[in-house]
Parts: sequence; C-alpha cells; structure tokens
Amino acid sequence: MSKILIVGAGKSTSYLIPYLLEKSNDIDLHITIADINLNNAQQACSGHHKCTAVKLDIFKQEERTDIISKHDLIISMLPASMHINIARDCLSLGKHMVTASYVSNEMEALDQEVKDKGLLFMNEIGVDPGIDHMSAMQVLDGIREQGGKILMFESFTGGLVAPESDNNLWNYKFTWNPRNVVVAGQGGVAKFIQEGKYKYIPYHKLFRRTEFMDIENYGRFEGYANRDSLKYRNAYGLNDVLTLYRGTMRRVGFSRAWNMFVQLGMTDDSFILEGSENMTYREFVNAFLPYSPTDSIELKLRHYLKIDQDDIMWEKVVDLDLFSATKVIGIPNATPAQALQKILEEAWTLSPEDKDMIVMYHKFGYELNGVKKQLDAHMVVTGQDQRYTAMSKTVGLPVGMAALNILKGNFKLTGVRIPIHKEIYDPILKELESYDILFNEIEKPYLGYNPDVVAG
Amino acid sequence: MSKILIVGAGKSTSYLIPYLLEKSNDIDLHITIADINLNNAQQACSGHHKCTAVKLDIFKQEERTDIISKHDLIISMLPASMHINIARDCLSLGKHMVTASYVSNEMEALDQEVKDKGLLFMNEIGVDPGIDHMSAMQVLDGIREQGGKILMFESFTGGLVAPESDNNLWNYKFTWNPRNVVVAGQGGVAKFIQEGKYKYIPYHKLFRRTEFMDIENYGRFEGYANRDSLKYRNAYGLNDVLTLYRGTMRRVGFSRAWNMFVQLGMTDDSFILEGSENMTYREFVNAFLPYSPTDSIELKLRHYLKIDQDDIMWEKVVDLDLFSATKVIGIPNATPAQALQKILEEAWTLSPEDKDMIVMYHKFGYELNGVKKQLDAHMVVTGQDQRYTAMSKTVGLPVGMAALNILKGNFKLTGVRIPIHKEIYDPILKELESYDILFNEIEKPYLGYNPDVVAG
Repeated sequence: MSKILIVGAGKSTSYLIPYLLEKSNDIDLHITIADINLNNAQQACSGHHKCTAVKLDIFKQEERTDIISKHDLIISMLPASMHINIARDCLSLGKHMVTASYVSNEMEALDQEVKDKGLLFMNEIGVDPGIDHMSAMQVLDGIREQGGKILMFESFTGGLVAPESDNNLWNYKFTWNPRNVVVAGQGGVAKFIQEGKYKYIPYHKLFRRTEFMDIENYGRFEGYANRDSLKYRNAYGLNDVLTLYRGTMRRVGFSRAWNMFVQLGMTDDSFILEGSENMTYREFVNAFLPYSPTDSIELKLRHYLKIDQDDIMWEKVVDLDLFSATKVIGIPNATPAQALQKILEEAWTLSPEDKDMIVMYHKFGYELNGVKKQLDAHMVVTGQDQRYTAMSKTVGLPVGMAALNILKGNFKLTGVRIPIHKEIYDPILKELESYDILFNEIEKPYLGYNPDVVAG
Repeated sequence: MSKILIVGAGKSTSYLIPYLLEKSNDIDLHITIADINLNNAQQACSGHHKCTAVKLDIFKQEERTDIISKHDLIISMLPASMHINIARDCLSLGKHMVTASYVSNEMEALDQEVKDKGLLFMNEIGVDPGIDHMSAMQVLDGIREQGGKILMFESFTGGLVAPESDNNLWNYKFTWNPRNVVVAGQGGVAKFIQEGKYKYIPYHKLFRRTEFMDIENYGRFEGYANRDSLKYRNAYGLNDVLTLYRGTMRRVGFSRAWNMFVQLGMTDDSFILEGSENMTYREFVNAFLPYSPTDSIELKLRHYLKIDQDDIMWEKVVDLDLFSATKVIGIPNATPAQALQKILEEAWTLSPEDKDMIVMYHKFGYELNGVKKQLDAHMVVTGQDQRYTAMSKTVGLPVGMAALNILKGNFKLTGVRIPIHKEIYDPILKELESYDILFNEIEKPYLGYNPDVVAG
C-alpha cells in the first residue's frame, strides 16, 4: 500500500484531496491529511475510509519527522517558505516530495543529495508555475522533434473572475492573494527579449506596455510583462530564441486603469504613511496630489492623471469609493500599498456565488523547412464556486497526478525538478484533459517579428 | 600661534587656502596642507611662508595621528566617508574639527564625548549644507524674536552654469559630481508638508511637480523636491510649521526634459545592461522602447514620450547625440544610470572658460501681529573660472571662517554641531557679505497657502 501525506489542508486542496481519495478506490492508497488545525484536516478527509486526519505543527521537529517517516510521499501545500524543513526531512528519511511552489535556492541546493538517494522532489507543478511549463514544453519539444527552430515564445497566465461573475468596471476581482496583485511588477525592471534585442520596462511604464490576445468565446485580454521573462530560458532550451516574453493576463483596460495607482504612487510598499490609521480614503488620495487652496481633490486627480471628462478611467476610480471622506484606512503604520489593498478589497472581493477563471496563452513562433509559422495555444478553466475554484483545480490536480505517477514508478527522473520533461508532462497533460483542463491550439500567421527586416 | 591642518587639497580648497593664508598675515597662524599627493599640497601652499605641505596617507594611522597631534584644529576636505577616522583622532587628541559634509551616524555618535572634552566638531558648514542652514536660521530666529509664528519654510539650492556660459539647450552643465545628478531623487519617495498635510511624490513624478522662482536679473528657475524635506524640521524648530519643503533648483525646462530619461528608465541604477560595453547610444535608447519591425527609434521615442513635432524636448534629446549609431557606451556591465552619465558628460562638461553658479532661494511664510507675511531671500554666486568656482567659494569660505572663529574662541558651543546657532551664523554670514556672498530679501504677498480656506 502507498501512503501519501498531505501537509496543509488549505483552500488549494479542494480538488487535490477528492482526486486522490477517488483514485484510492482503484489503487492501494492511503491519504493522511495533516494540518495545524485538526478540524480542517477532518473536514478535508470528509470521513473517507482511506483518509486519516492528524494535527501537525510543522515547527515541532519530532512531530514532523515522525509523521513523515510513516509515509512514502509528502505533498506540501504549505506556504512556499515552509517547504524547506519538510524537504530536508524527506531527504534524510528517503521520501519523495511534491509542491506547487517555485524552487527556492535552499530547495535547489538539495538537488545532488536528492539524486544520490534516488528520490524525486517535484516542484512547480501547479498552475504558473506548473501547467505553463508542461504545456509549453510539450509544444516546444514537438516543434524541435520535427526539426523546427524556435524563434519566439511568449507565455501569459491570469487569475481572473469568470465572465458570469465579471460585474465591475475593472473586470477584476481578487481570486488569490491580493497583496501580490498590489505589488505586482515591483522590485526591479522588467527584462525580456524581442527579436534578439534586450528590452527593459521600468515599473512606472509596465502597465502601459501591454499586448492584446483574443480567445474565442472569451473575447479580448491584455498582458503585461513579468519581471522574470528570462528565468526559464535555459531550462526550456531557448538560449538562442529571438523573442522571449512572459506576462500576466488581465481583461482589457485593467492595466491602463491600474496605472493610475502606479502613477499616483499608491502601490509603493517602501514607506509608511503618516497617520494612516485615521486617514480617510479621501486624505489618502490627496497625499499624492499637489496642494491647492481652491481645487477639489477630484479635479486635482483628473488634471494630474489627464483624465478626460468622458473617460471610463474616471468611473473606475469613483467605483472604488476612493474619494470617500468617511471611510478610513484603519491600519496603523500602513504603507501606501497596504492602504490601497484595503480599499480594493472592499470592491474586488468575490461574492459567495462568484466564480474564478484561470486563463493561459502561449505563442510559439518557429521556422520549419524554411517557413516561419506561429502556433497559439490557450487554456481557460472556470471555477464552480468559491470552494471549487479554477485556481484550486489547476493547482491541485497536477500535484495529485504527479504524486501518483511517482508512487507508480512512472517517473525515472530524480533530484529537485520542475515539470519540463516529456516523461512528466505527457501523462499529466493527458490526464488533465479528462478534467477539461486542455489547450486549444490555433495556427496563425507569423506575428510579424520578422528578423530579416528589423528596424529596431 | 594657532596651527590648522587641512586634510585633502582637492578642488574645493581653491578659496579656503588663500583665505586662511591671507588671514595669517594679521594673526599668528600656520597652515599645514596634507594630501596623498605631495605635489597637490605644495601647489596649494604656493610657497607661502606660513604654509607647510606634507604627504599624508590617511589610512596609515600612525602617520595620521602624528600630524593631527601637532595641530590645534583639523579641517577635513576629504570625501565625506573618510572623515570619521580623523574625527576619532581629533577626539582622542583633543583637537577641534571642521567639515563641509553631512553629519554621518558615526559622527553623530561622538557628540557626547566631544562635548565632554570641550571640543567643537563643526559640520555642514559649506553650501547646502551650510550657507542654507545659516541664512535660513538667521531669518527664522529673527521672525521668532519679533514674536512671529513661522507658517511656511521652503528652501532651494542649485549648482548651475553661470548665465554667460549657459549655451546649451538644457541650460545645464555638470559643475559638480555628475553621478549625483543622474541618480538624484532615487531611493525612496519625496516627502514634505504643505499646509499641514503630508505629501508624497514618487520618483517617476518628481520632475513633473516643480515650482517656479524668479530672481531679479537672473530670470526664472524651477525647483523639484528633495527626498528629505523634513530632515531639519526639528533642528530648525519647525515642528509645528504648516509647510516645509526643500528642493533642488534648475533652469526652467530642465526637469520636464530630464523626466524623459526617468520615464524611459535610463536613470535606473539597479540593474546591468546586457552588452553595455559595445552598445551604441542608439541601441541604448532602443533597449527602453517597444520593438517594431518598421518604425524608427526616433519615431518610437517621440510616440512613447508623446513629444510633438515642434516640442523643444525633441531638440534637447537630439542635442545629446542620443541616436548616434557609432558612439558606444564603452563601459562593461554598466547600469543605465552609468550609461546615461557617459552620454551626458560628453554634452554637459564645462569648457575651460565656463563659469559655474550657485543659487539659493528661501521662502519664509509667517504670521506677525495677526498678519500673514512672506519673505523671500535669494543668493546668487558666480564662479570666476574652473578653478575659482562658485562651489569652491561657497564651500571653502564658511569652512575657513568657522575654523578661525573656533581658534579665536568666539564659539562657546561644544559637541558635534551644524551651523544653526546664532553665535555661529551671525559672524560668518556677516563676513561672507564682504566676499559678495549675500542674500537679497524681498517682502512678498503671502504665497496663497491660506490655512483658513484649505480645500485640499
């Protein structure tokens, strides 16, 4: 019998656990769910006879090693920073491990030892990172197998609100960690390559350098650059590619409107606002505008941001109640980013009946037999409700599938890995299709990035 | 006989040393000039019988303490980071000290010990910091002595090119450290107070939030906010002031044009440009612009920055040869800021016959006997040539004057100090007048920052 330990019964396990429990009907499998809150673990087990719920404080080493030692494979669904202690235990106790998180430097450092022990620590196998790696590598490897040369790779992912719940002017609600949205793009220049040339976008221009993508039945989206477009250049085998760009997807108009906050300075997380606790929303706005003895804050903002009378940008601002003289930030020693998050959370939080949506869009440009071609591939996954979200589905299912494949011995790879290998992505992408997580591929005219007539 | 040791015979001593040597004709004074380069020290002495030149490596402790021990007062004209070793020696050997630099944390930490020994370490007694402190405090204290209440204090300083040498489109040349100009305003939000309200300007808006100042016979200037407007709030006794703003002066139009570099991302000092060494100026520009297979870099820049056909901004860019396809950056692993500095140094370096200019502008708003008033005070100092610069004059003379006043026992203060006390600023400002370093005061209508009708 194979024994899986899931550490952390948070909201991203709503698909993972039922998936594994369902599989346990066919294969000899037992699931243990460990959480700091026993009740959470019990609810997650939902009384299934192949599931055990336990209370675990992962900071108690003895407790942790004891439970890990009794399992064959550990799935850590904890926040990313907490994986490393579990990883070290898995290494010393000889257990496989699966996470949906980015490979940290500490995790990466374990690679050789993990290999030496014949173990596999599978990371970045959720959604961005995860499904993006797998779907991209399947196409890239396929083109290369045919003898094609990759010229361009662009990849975008977005966590959005589903069309049926998309009912505010921003076409956006928080479906995941709001803080990540507020500080997105900060901390350094966005760097990427277009037609062999390095391009740099400073933060204050990031949301004005978007590109559009159309998805049949879903309409138009836009993408802005991630900071780390070149991060997987080597891993994907794209060291010679002419164009490499990774980005975040939003509904059209979001970035232009978000740019208002950036321009005002409201997304800054580096300093404390004087008197933030008792500051009204209106005072918060005014702190970023020039003083005037006569003009209203409204007019000052319109003038400062050059918002015309009939510009929908204005309605978007008003929609947030940003000029309220009664609502207060209520957070002591808040940064502007924290204050803004507070304001946005009021407007952008999902209602109980709202559904989320994950969209992914890849563009592959390549040359095959002397002809330049483009293939676009996109995926749309919509949540069922606030528990069975698209985010939880696209994170949990590939994690669960990876775990079972490891236990079945289907993966020969060892070490600290991300899912860029055929033996990993082929079976998982195939299985994901049966859960309606699939890519629609469309041949297109080559985008026009013509390396023979480069003017700039 | 009093003995002064000047450490460092750099370009900012061209007025200081002749000033002290001239004074030595009347008072019993000997000057020693110590420099890492003996030749520099000898040239600075220019054969004067009361001057001795010595070679000194300040990092050799024995050499350093030996020479310091033989003098009564030490003037450090070294770069700011090098003062602290000399300060510690002065403390242990019981010597007074004078510098024109900002008080570092390490220097500040010596305060009590310096007081205990009855010594005075006079810092920030050059120009910004220095003359700005003294001239502001003289007016502020004067208003308070009359029973007035300070409502507003704004203070601007600029190191510029003199009108007779002002012959480029930017109305600017590098008269001091170019790097400080390129990275000015970076590293955090600019924070100040207007009419009792805290205001914050993010870096990318800093150069679009200027205000104008007129100086008779010199025309119009503009000022942009320093990051540290509140730095001297407490020292100046302005904790209750409604408006406190410190800024940097430029000729009108400079900031709007400089903002082009900020918007493009060219002033960023936080990352390395790929291939900077062999990068042409043209490629440097293009790295910050979107890719296009057809459009010129010129048109892309005009479009990106919304520069109209007939906008002088365009001529300013062209004037720098920014689109040259032959000139190369030539610096390996350069940041954008370093690359931009290289380009600007070609265009903005003083010619041998060029003169510099220091301008300072204070605005004091106050209420006296129920009436609101405003007093503006400005100073303009023009250099003679590239050796006898306005910068060297306004730094060196107050330093020299402070040194002599200390030796004469005119200052009763002890400790680590800046020149905000009447016993210091009164005699020095008076003596500076005889060198044509003086302020022109003008009564004006109160600026309109009317605290009774504040809308925002």
